[in-house]
Amino acid sequence: MKLQGNAVVAQSGGPTAVINNSVCGVIQEWLKGDPPGTLYGALFGIRGVMEEHMLDLSRQPSHIIEGLRYTPGVALGSCRYKLDREEDFSRLLDAFKKHGIRYFFFIGGNDSMDTADKINRFADKVNYEMRVIGIPKTIDNDLPETDHTPGYGSAAKFLAATVRETGLDLKGLITSNRIVVLEAMGRNAGWLTAASALAKREECDAPHLIYLPEVPFEREKFLEQVSEVYREYRFAYVVASEGIRYPDSGYVFKGRGKDPFGHVRLGGLADTLKGIIEEELHLNVRGISLGTLQRAAAHFASRTDADEAYLVGSAAVRAALQGETDIMITLLRDESAGTYRCTTGTVDLSAVANVEKKVPLDWISATGSYVEDEFLDYARPLIAGEVSPVIKDGLPDFIHFQDFKIPELRRELDRDAASVIK
Amino acid sequence: MKLQGNAVVAQSGGPTAVINNSVCGVIQEWLKGDPPGTLYGALFGIRGVMEEHMLDLSRQPSHIIEGLRYTPGVALGSCRYKLDREEDFSRLLDAFKKHGIRYFFFIGGNDSMDTADKINRFADKVNYEMRVIGIPKTIDNDLPETDHTPGYGSAAKFLAATVRETGLDLKGLITSNRIVVLEAMGRNAGWLTAASALAKREECDAPHLIYLPEVPFEREKFLEQVSEVYREYRFAYVVASEGIRYPDSGYVFKGRGKDPFGHVRLGGLADTLKGIIEEELHLNVRGISLGTLQRAAAHFASRTDADEAYLVGSAAVRAALQGETDIMITLLRDESAGTYRCTTGTVDLSAVANVEKKVPLDWISATGSYVEDEFLDYARPLIAGEVSPVIKDGLPDFIHFQDFKIPELRRELDRDAASVIK
Repeated sequence: MKLQGNAVVAQSGGPTAVINNSVCGVIQEWLKGDPPGTLYGALFGIRGVMEEHMLDLSRQPSHIIEGLRYTPGVALGSCRYKLDREEDFSRLLDAFKKHGIRYFFFIGGNDSMDTADKINRFADKVNYEMRVIGIPKTIDNDLPETDHTPGYGSAAKFLAATVRETGLDLKGLITSNRIVVLEAMGRNAGWLTAASALAKREECDAPHLIYLPEVPFEREKFLEQVSEVYREYRFAYVVASEGIRYPDSGYVFKGRGKDPFGHVRLGGLADTLKGIIEEELHLNVRGISLGTLQRAAAHFASRTDADEAYLVGSAAVRAALQGETDIMITLLRDESAGTYRCTTGTVDLSAVANVEKKVPLDWISATGSYVEDEFLDYARPLIAGEVSPVIKDGLPDFIHFQDFKIPELRRELDRDAASVIK
Repeated sequence: MKLQGNAVVAQSGGPTAVINNSVCGVIQEWLKGDPPGTLYGALFGIRGVMEEHMLDLSRQPSHIIEGLRYTPGVALGSCRYKLDREEDFSRLLDAFKKHGIRYFFFIGGNDSMDTADKINRFADKVNYEMRVIGIPKTIDNDLPETDHTPGYGSAAKFLAATVRETGLDLKGLITSNRIVVLEAMGRNAGWLTAASALAKREECDAPHLIYLPEVPFEREKFLEQVSEVYREYRFAYVVASEGIRYPDSGYVFKGRGKDPFGHVRLGGLADTLKGIIEEELHLNVRGISLGTLQRAAAHFASRTDADEAYLVGSAAVRAALQGETDIMITLLRDESAGTYRCTTGTVDLSAVANVEKKVPLDWISATGSYVEDEFLDYARPLIAGEVSPVIKDGLPDFIHFQDFKIPELRRELDRDAASVIK
């Protein structure tokens, strides 16, 4: 018999252009047929459960639920909060019990899958029956056991389009700025950076050089490679992951401070590489740093990616209602019919938690500065198809949930936070 | 009687997302009816005329000419080359005479209109009859005597869309990065930066603070304004022109070296402001620096802008064939019917050359950190409408002219250039 009880869906970590498609998939699948309880949305991630800020999602109008399909960002709000103290788990379980929550859908990446796994184990320990299902999401594409991760295809598509457009800009212009360095997100895995190679159609097209965190960055070799491209074309387009490191493991760019998970904050790599090239080669460089636009550009999202993000959301609900728990939904590539299609599978959360999948070294050129065709064949189907953004007054229009007052709730959640500006 | 002779069209300075629409307008208008000669395209701008690298545009297939409508960058190539020595003008006139060129269409911004004016005067002086017509183009929107400039609407639309999407990303996420600083192009005029205000629909929406070069930048006031927004919302989104200066006229960020027109090279402002905020307010900042994407993002160009870029190209040909010379085509806004429409006019090149139109101070808030409704009313119609990018394998597809071998010609033009890497 189906476990009776309510459900909560939460978004965790950074947004993607299509993460709200997963929320939409959860809601629409849950409301089908005869749901065993009410579906809540946790506001600002796991903190929304612990501090009991939740929305009854079945009361949201259908046009808002449908609008999740084209709205980037995290419609329910999200946080980066490391759940590791016993009292955090107790507090969470108390909230689950108080609100009769038996189903927990957690949309996130590596850190979040670890959190979901711990929640499942804690519930087990205290004999509280639950269904805990992880829904994969990350533009980094670094989750193991799944062919790829929802969010990646759209980030890859936008990044590659950016390189095509700015590469063409560079190619046609004889001016002092002859080199472009584009910094892409990616701390330890170069999947997104590698996707820039999809932009190239002719030999002289951008990108010319691609640097991934999987390969130690050698300054002299880098300068030689840039010089060589420059000699050939009189311009050069470089794409590099923010997380590239020197052979001694030190980041090429190191930011200030660490995030709540203890990861060093990155960013500013474009300026660092610009400095190296200008100083040594006396060529002018323009840096491009798209920042969060890489994960937010829903106006040019991948149709394939948006649909798959929806798919993993709905599959999570089906799995939970069938009695599964402590699993993450995976994407399975099926090319048996000669064309790309994708179905879903499941994997134990413990197999995913905190494991990072990197770009295989044999998909990276021997020079360490480009990718092989195997990578392109893997990535190309993931950027296929376009979405139709909803436009109002010339700009993308978005939905937001009713009764979710963002500034008010941010201020409330921030009360205890350390901040110099109260 | 119509002046018999050939024509040449050249693109100058930086690209825009729609500059090739102007080339398309020139070609299609010229080929209508009974043209007085052959239409050439100068490769890599004015240098293509001087060094006799030109394409017969009437021999290009019609699908390539039509493809100019959706191709960003400069399809004919462009350069930044300051024409100021007597021998440069002589060489240019020699090329005009040798190829029977009597019509010169020059697509560019302030510097280019000055160049066109000088060419016209030189031709006059040596009694060589010519028609010299300037076609306006710049994302900076800083040309005087025209309501606005083709290229601006598309850059404004893409920038505002970026601020909407990344603003939503920021708003929903409670994490360590609470502040975004986006650096927009604009040396002396803040038109593009100001357009970010089109992104705001609700009070807490990004952007919260906008800094234009028209207003001296005061560090302490800036920190107070950021703190105030942060106290209110617990996040803040700042957009600033790369060209903002301190009250003593020093750039907030100063780059290395100068361009061929003697302008200081800018860029890296996002990192400078990030440093100021992190040091003084101890808040984490993410910088976004779109670089050339601002002028290249044809996949989200403004339909209005693309159509007007075509219009000024075709109007230039009509004006020349009617005997006009030494003029630039202008855009005239007509809102007499209650809705926005635009026609063309003309203005003497000398009235435009080297004059910069800035954002009127009464369109800027008294706080110096936002824009007034007058600006929004001015800018909104310019971003209206979308183009339909041509997509192949999930990415924008572009045309390029037949027989324009870019790397080969770049190497040839570069022979004499000072470069450490030969």
